[in-house]
Amino acid sequence: MGKKNKQFVEKITAMEDDFAQWYTDVVKQAELVDYGLVRGTMIMTPYGYGIWENIKNELDKKIKETGHSNVQFPVFIPESLLQKEKDHVEGFAPEVAWVTHGGEEELAERLAFRPTSEVLFCDYYSKNIHSYRDLPKLYNQWANVVRWEKTTRPFLRSSEFHWQEGHTAHATYEDAAAETDRMLEVYADIVENYLAVPVIRGRKTESEKFAGAEYTITIESMMHDGRALQAATSHHFGSGFAEAFDITYLDKEGKSQFVHQTSWGLSTRVMGGLIMVHGDNRGLVVPPKIAPTQAMIVPIAQHKEGVLDAAADIRNKLADVIRVDMDDSDKMPGWKFNECEMKGYPVRIEIGPKDIEKNQAVLVRRDTNEKDFVSLDELVDKVPALLEEVQQNLYDQALTHREEKTTTVKSMEDVEKAIAENPGFMNGMWCGDEACEEKLKEDYQVTSRCIPFEQEAVSDTCLCCGKDAKELVIWARAY
Amino acid sequence: MGKKNKQFVEKITAMEDDFAQWYTDVVKQAELVDYGLVRGTMIMTPYGYGIWENIKNELDKKIKETGHSNVQFPVFIPESLLQKEKDHVEGFAPEVAWVTHGGEEELAERLAFRPTSEVLFCDYYSKNIHSYRDLPKLYNQWANVVRWEKTTRPFLRSSEFHWQEGHTAHATYEDAAAETDRMLEVYADIVENYLAVPVIRGRKTESEKFAGAEYTITIESMMHDGRALQAATSHHFGSGFAEAFDITYLDKEGKSQFVHQTSWGLSTRVMGGLIMVHGDNRGLVVPPKIAPTQAMIVPIAQHKEGVLDAAADIRNKLADVIRVDMDDSDKMPGWKFNECEMKGYPVRIEIGPKDIEKNQAVLVRRDTNEKDFVSLDELVDKVPALLEEVQQNLYDQALTHREEKTTTVKSMEDVEKAIAENPGFMNGMWCGDEACEEKLKEDYQVTSRCIPFEQEAVSDTCLCCGKDAKELVIWARAY
Repeated sequence: MGKKNKQFVEKITAMEDDFAQWYTDVVKQAELVDYGLVRGTMIMTPYGYGIWENIKNELDKKIKETGHSNVQFPVFIPESLLQKEKDHVEGFAPEVAWVTHGGEEELAERLAFRPTSEVLFCDYYSKNIHSYRDLPKLYNQWANVVRWEKTTRPFLRSSEFHWQEGHTAHATYEDAAAETDRMLEVYADIVENYLAVPVIRGRKTESEKFAGAEYTITIESMMHDGRALQAATSHHFGSGFAEAFDITYLDKEGKSQFVHQTSWGLSTRVMGGLIMVHGDNRGLVVPPKIAPTQAMIVPIAQHKEGVLDAAADIRNKLADVIRVDMDDSDKMPGWKFNECEMKGYPVRIEIGPKDIEKNQAVLVRRDTNEKDFVSLDELVDKVPALLEEVQQNLYDQALTHREEKTTTVKSMEDVEKAIAENPGFMNGMWCGDEACEEKLKEDYQVTSRCIPFEQEAVSDTCLCCGKDAKELVIWARAY
Repeated sequence: MGKKNKQFVEKITAMEDDFAQWYTDVVKQAELVDYGLVRGTMIMTPYGYGIWENIKNELDKKIKETGHSNVQFPVFIPESLLQKEKDHVEGFAPEVAWVTHGGEEELAERLAFRPTSEVLFCDYYSKNIHSYRDLPKLYNQWANVVRWEKTTRPFLRSSEFHWQEGHTAHATYEDAAAETDRMLEVYADIVENYLAVPVIRGRKTESEKFAGAEYTITIESMMHDGRALQAATSHHFGSGFAEAFDITYLDKEGKSQFVHQTSWGLSTRVMGGLIMVHGDNRGLVVPPKIAPTQAMIVPIAQHKEGVLDAAADIRNKLADVIRVDMDDSDKMPGWKFNECEMKGYPVRIEIGPKDIEKNQAVLVRRDTNEKDFVSLDELVDKVPALLEEVQQNLYDQALTHREEKTTTVKSMEDVEKAIAENPGFMNGMWCGDEACEEKLKEDYQVTSRCIPFEQEAVSDTCLCCGKDAKELVIWARAY
């Protein structure tokens, strides 16, 4: 048995040796996705899709609770429509997949597979918003989008990915700003309290904002290797799109006004985030709140009388309070343990003949690997409580990790040192000049992740050029 | 007020005058969809999408209860893959939308926007099924598909539509046959018990079956104008695709065997069905079980003291048991009534000063327009009960209508007479020869809808050629 386990574990590369390969191994071995035939596409198999479905369901609830309605817009954008907003088309055109033929017929105009749907919603709003009574329009859609990327990785950067995109129109700039903030908070809630990933809220610099936006706000998270992942963004468009698409309304005084718009999205990328934040060398670790299987029961010596019955009994009792499953396949228990670890089920429940005698079961936490013997009579209370503990601990661990890998930098020498000795987030002052961002990118592949809402003056001068500092920026290498 | 109502009602054409125009009017006026910019695409706006979302949620539950897992496969099919199964590619190639460019680069191979995903699942199964232990594979996905149709209508035939497509692989022909039947029953359950649309279960003839299937079974429903709509289909592929894609497994004896496959789908087309089955000249009628708003409260003389409070009180009480909303906008009550009718809310609840005095509210059923005065203390019991009655009555009405519009036909003269006098379903015997199907199609635009599972010999000879009859067929003009 020992040998078998080892083989199974050896299927994944150690994080320390090659983080990128570790990631690829986990994605495949935990059966989250398989590669599609077309470059950069992925097949989300049941376990991977099950996690995404749970994230989706929780987020969908919150999107509805904040007053939004789901809609479904077409997947195709006529080329001329995409070109209506200058910055937007420049940002997206290079990575558009183009449909040129319908059946045998060549189309008169090329159609873009939506890389994002701003222009479709704008066109609709321009025809359907007339008066202040029609505002706000609070629409959201769950959709697949395509961006023809040069280098791709499952979840992190795939040619086709899945997301929700909210598109709203408001009477005033302030209303739109409040919406932009509100939705970032919804995302922060999902990512922190469900995915157990701590985030830093902030504003993107001009060079990092969404193509066509007035400003973009973001939640940034830190992966295990210290790199940043943008978990979700929310964009304020001001009246830029409204002017390009002529989206006006009559206000209460009968005066024609441009609407103010927002858009916001969270995608399957966060799946990559949760893998790289919580995973370890034994495989994936899924936070309980979004785990398709929160506890897996593994019967020990299941051929012995009463074991499978006792295991099934536990499952039936727990099924009312958590998502529980039982592995009664003919694999060896050691193999099953390894599979539980690889798939990252938050809790494993072992029950064998000796446990039955003692009226107990063994609970094993995936996050700390701690074992606990619990009376069968208490399982219905203890397992949900343990899941809450695991959820909290995953968040705490990730936060500690982020704090440990965050450095204050005051000069380019500090940056170089941080990258060499403790790569992660760097808190450093910036003068506001794009040239300094460029230099950090060129010299160290470091980008400005955000201008955090919580500002602190860690020095008086720009870490790059030494001129007067304008604001604190979180700098990091990023996915 | 009277004038205003009239204007609102006049927005839709009467069914009797022009059924097609009535349909288009209802779809637009009930705010189910709007037209997309690209030919044949549609924008599903909140109300239309809300109904679809309810259908989707109910069906998704049943798909999971029957042991299936959701997955998400890529949207693109390489041209060479699509060509692997001869019948299948012939059936779908003429209506494929082709992606030829990614960004600036011309692709080496054209990519089809999936018109259906059999070949993608087959390719995956060929790589991931090895042993009998891997079977059955019970996968489902919710997806958008594109078929480049010449003539399109919202829901009924759109270039892009939304559906679920189940794709399963089994060890034996019998297992696959049982699955094909099981899923047709799931569909029948959804369509009859949620959409309140009675269906006839049967097998498609060879000429009407799915491209590449061994056989197709279907549920057929009758629209208000007597035409048939195929509500959902389930296909048995035998080992045809398995042979084309080399999907084999080792059985318990270690012998290599081809798998047996099925696929089954239900799409946004059923939205068209529910409109054309239940709608009337006042607009849409939505069956309670899938209605986003099951009851709409309309306050009467809402400026008078206590009216809005009483209405809100009703809403708060009912919100625990049904999906309820309140229209406290400044529109006239008559306008609100018309809107309730146009949108097809199953029940309208009116409350005004006189009702409050009598501690009552007025319940108006959308299906029969009957009014009932109900004590406010009983609303929480009475409204859900009334919704059940409406649900049942919608089904019963549709069934009666179908029975009234079903004729037994024994000859081509009978067919001609039925079409002229009582167009609908025609029960008629068939010899099994495709030439007779062709003739009925050419002469009367009538197609074989299905060979119903419940057979009855209504005559000894084929209604078309007069030769020996083989089986009973339901004939009809169809959407």
